Amino acid sequence: MAAKIDFNCDMGESFGTYKLGFDEEVVKHITSANVACGWHAGDPIWMRHTVQLAEKQGVAVGAHPSFPDLMGFGRRNMAVDPSEAKDYVIYQIGALQAFTKGKKLQHVKPHGAMYNMAANDEKLARAICEAVLEVDPTMILVVLAGTPWVEVAQKMGVRVAKEAFADRALNPDGTLVSRSKPGSVIHDTKEVVARSLQMVTQGKAKAITGQEIPVRADTLCLHGDTPGAVEMAAALKKELEAAGVKVAPMGTFL
Amino acid sequence: MAAKIDFNCDMGESFGTYKLGFDEEVVKHITSANVACGWHAGDPIWMRHTVQLAEKQGVAVGAHPSFPDLMGFGRRNMAVDPSEAKDYVIYQIGALQAFTKGKKLQHVKPHGAMYNMAANDEKLARAICEAVLEVDPTMILVVLAGTPWVEVAQKMGVRVAKEAFADRALNPDGTLVSRSKPGSVIHDTKEVVARSLQMVTQGKAKAITGQEIPVRADTLCLHGDTPGAVEMAAALKKELEAAGVKVAPMGTFL
Amino acid sequence: MAAKIDFNCDMGESFGTYKLGFDEEVVKHITSANVACGWHAGDPIWMRHTVQLAEKQGVAVGAHPSFPDLMGFGRRNMAVDPSEAKDYVIYQIGALQAFTKGKKLQHVKPHGAMYNMAANDEKLARAICEAVLEVDPTMILVVLAGTPWVEVAQKMGVRVAKEAFADRALNPDGTLVSRSKPGSVIHDTKEVVARSLQMVTQGKAKAITGQEIPVRADTLCLHGDTPGAVEMAAALKKELEAAGVKVAPMGTFL
Amino acid sequence: MAAKIDFNCDMGESFGTYKLGFDEEVVKHITSANVACGWHAGDPIWMRHTVQLAEKQGVAVGAHPSFPDLMGFGRRNMAVDPSEAKDYVIYQIGALQAFTKGKKLQHVKPHGAMYNMAANDEKLARAICEAVLEVDPTMILVVLAGTPWVEVAQKMGVRVAKEAFADRALNPDGTLVSRSKPGSVIHDTKEVVARSLQMVTQGKAKAITGQEIPVRADTLCLHGDTPGAVEMAAALKKELEAAGVKVAPMGTFL
Repeated sequence: MAAKIDFNCDMGESFGTYKLGFDEEVVKHITSANVACGWHAGDPIWMRHTVQLAEKQGVAVGAHPSFPDLMGFGRRNMAVDPSEAKDYVIYQIGALQAFTKGKKLQHVKPHGAMYNMAANDEKLARAICEAVLEVDPTMILVVLAGTPWVEVAQKMGVRVAKEAFADRALNPDGTLVSRSKPGSVIHDTKEVVARSLQMVTQGKAKAITGQEIPVRADTLCLHGDTPGAVEMAAALKKELEAAGVKVAPMGTFL
Repeated sequence: MAAKIDFNCDMGESFGTYKLGFDEEVVKHITSANVACGWHAGDPIWMRHTVQLAEKQGVAVGAHPSFPDLMGFGRRNMAVDPSEAKDYVIYQIGALQAFTKGKKLQHVKPHGAMYNMAANDEKLARAICEAVLEVDPTMILVVLAGTPWVEVAQKMGVRVAKEAFADRALNPDGTLVSRSKPGSVIHDTKEVVARSLQMVTQGKAKAITGQEIPVRADTLCLHGDTPGAVEMAAALKKELEAAGVKVAPMGTFL
Repeated sequence: MAAKIDFNCDMGESFGTYKLGFDEEVVKHITSANVACGWHAGDPIWMRHTVQLAEKQGVAVGAHPSFPDLMGFGRRNMAVDPSEAKDYVIYQIGALQAFTKGKKLQHVKPHGAMYNMAANDEKLARAICEAVLEVDPTMILVVLAGTPWVEVAQKMGVRVAKEAFADRALNPDGTLVSRSKPGSVIHDTKEVVARSLQMVTQGKAKAITGQEIPVRADTLCLHGDTPGAVEMAAALKKELEAAGVKVAPMGTFL
Repeated sequence: MAAKIDFNCDMGESFGTYKLGFDEEVVKHITSANVACGWHAGDPIWMRHTVQLAEKQGVAVGAHPSFPDLMGFGRRNMAVDPSEAKDYVIYQIGALQAFTKGKKLQHVKPHGAMYNMAANDEKLARAICEAVLEVDPTMILVVLAGTPWVEVAQKMGVRVAKEAFADRALNPDGTLVSRSKPGSVIHDTKEVVARSLQMVTQGKAKAITGQEIPVRADTLCLHGDTPGAVEMAAALKKELEAAGVKVAPMGTFL
């Protein structure tokens, strides 16, 4: 059986007159779109547009909820009470759901600070899982591979997609090397392709220390915010498919 | 067959630490709750709370979407493009829908300036109808009785609930007497009850000029923002039921 | 004595991670910057940045207040009570003023819908004038040449700069030809330069009907939102100076 | 020479149609008002109203800036970059300043989470001090007595008012006992008066452990959010004045 992988990318992060990202290009090379829901980016007009854009390309649609921080693009940690975070996520999932004309959302991937905090804050992690289960228990929750959140979600009965970053260096414990450190982001397309292939076909990757560590990923996080990022997405899809990997929406194989 | 009428009231218009309205009291005397969706009032925490409050009392839940104007409580006309207003309404319906744990919303009633503008702006009226049809064509749209909006909605195939105001004086053409004119708001409970009874059982009301005019209403708009308003709601329900009128959620008889 | 004219341009309309406009380029060719104050665009970080950018180039700084409509970029008419609009303007002027390190703002130019509405709504026009007078009566208010607002402001004792658009066709009564009509916007640089020269040196312009009409302008509105607009600004400045016109901040000659 | 103390209270925390606090009452018993600037509460209309209310009573006016968190009333920690926090504070000070008709603001007291974080985060503390110095170095900054922030501010040349809470229990090191612990808030008016008197006249207070510790306060934080809080403010002023303490705006004696 062929190895399978999903490519997810944040989309719909424009706002009003402000245009952000190369959605029209990157959408051709991904399988799942994380659509901003108006709290860190996006607005109802862009949400409709982005859902249509994804559907036209056969890309599965998911919600990309955030803390309420438009000015900071949802990238700043906020000490939101978990029960309030749960309701924030429910609100945003519902708002996006309404633009699908009766279809179901495939997945939910929290954005920025909410995603990063949940990876290591069990209360927040649980709250987000509860939100997903309450709105629609068939939705998949995208969580960072190798974090306690994975187990929390699985124990609660949430369908989980483990996410890895093809262009980010890893510590020996599987966590991401901090962006503030040299070598944390890998810019060479060939290396990113090679790492992705190894992750997807062998379930492992080379850590920044040189040793090989296990990495089980269901979905790779790609970017669409620069022309270079779009090219990398295109190359990655082409190379993985050439190697016999099936690149498909996570909902088709999880 | 007994005459039937719905009592609707705006609810969930608190926001964060700000408390507004006597929801806990008025909910006992109404049959349909218009729940604020965060754009003129309300937030995810209050939305969950208000949906639960309504459901505990057997009150049907509907969305109360607004223009994006938290500072002005959605009461200020905004020249929003109809296609954008449509997406604003869809967003807010979806956000509230997500708090019903899989149940359907009974209805949608636009708030404040959006409601008033739509009553006489066919493009906006159509846009709101399209929003309802797109999200769920079984939802009822509450529109002001006697306005062109009623016909617009009916022609488009929207389930319509015609709304009347028991405590507002009417012009001979059935429109509301402007709040800026003397006698526009009726404060005497007895008179409000008498007018309501006549509307519900005879389908007519006395206009401010004295002549009787036809008024066909499916739902009466009640208020919960003052203790006096809550008392009037209680009196109205008691008196109408005593007169043999069935006070029930609009969805049960439309 | 040489004819004098000011060139003003909206600036600082980026927001958080969203970048808008070619401020760094257009700032070289203008004399007055209208800096967004966070209500339709801009935020405190961009306000600081934009004030510094203007000051480095010797460009005078003014406030560009708006209705509270970030989602609509302040372009949508809002039925804001004039006394509230006054306070909105005061708030935004003060917020920008605080970034000048003790210097005074040269001017105020309301943005988008607020500017357009005030041109023909005397109550709103007066409210904005009152705001300027209350915060600092030495500030200049930029108003559309040929509108009732000019007289309103002058009668109230406000320092007024009359604004004209070098790239917009005019009706015979001096008002702008609606953007929805063909020929409303002039894209040919040569023609824009010629029109500007005629306005500045002769105080008149050719209306869309062909007849010449009087146009008294203190400041021309330029744009920085496209590379073409920046080039036009550069050409305009070069040609006007070559023709002996002094291009200088409005505060130096009004 | 008589002992002197200032009484400060948060005011102007209403928003649009939402009314919060008993400003009209508490203003009679305090000497400095911390006026909300629209980011956690307040809006331009309430800012004007509150400045007028304070001035009528001879109460000095100061800014009460916050993180951008209207939904959370500014009470949630946010990982805002210090340089951005600086600009947020400058923006809000300026916005309020514009409503004083040319008068200077007496002081700045950050709100909620921003205040609490700054008490123990030197980078944030410095950023807020820089904001005050940049806008107007004669303004007083209110900081929590006994925290590192006091020294940071004093070293930077900021005029500092050390704040104490008459109704909060203290740890032996002078920090506030966490609200989550029993006995953290003192509700008995007599005890609050006695503690205040001891702080003001002897410069010390009894910690929750029983031992006496030094407490040097320039201003006491009072509350106006409940009728009981207003009564306590009234009692406190009456008793301190009866004991010969001069209760006056901090700007008159610092």
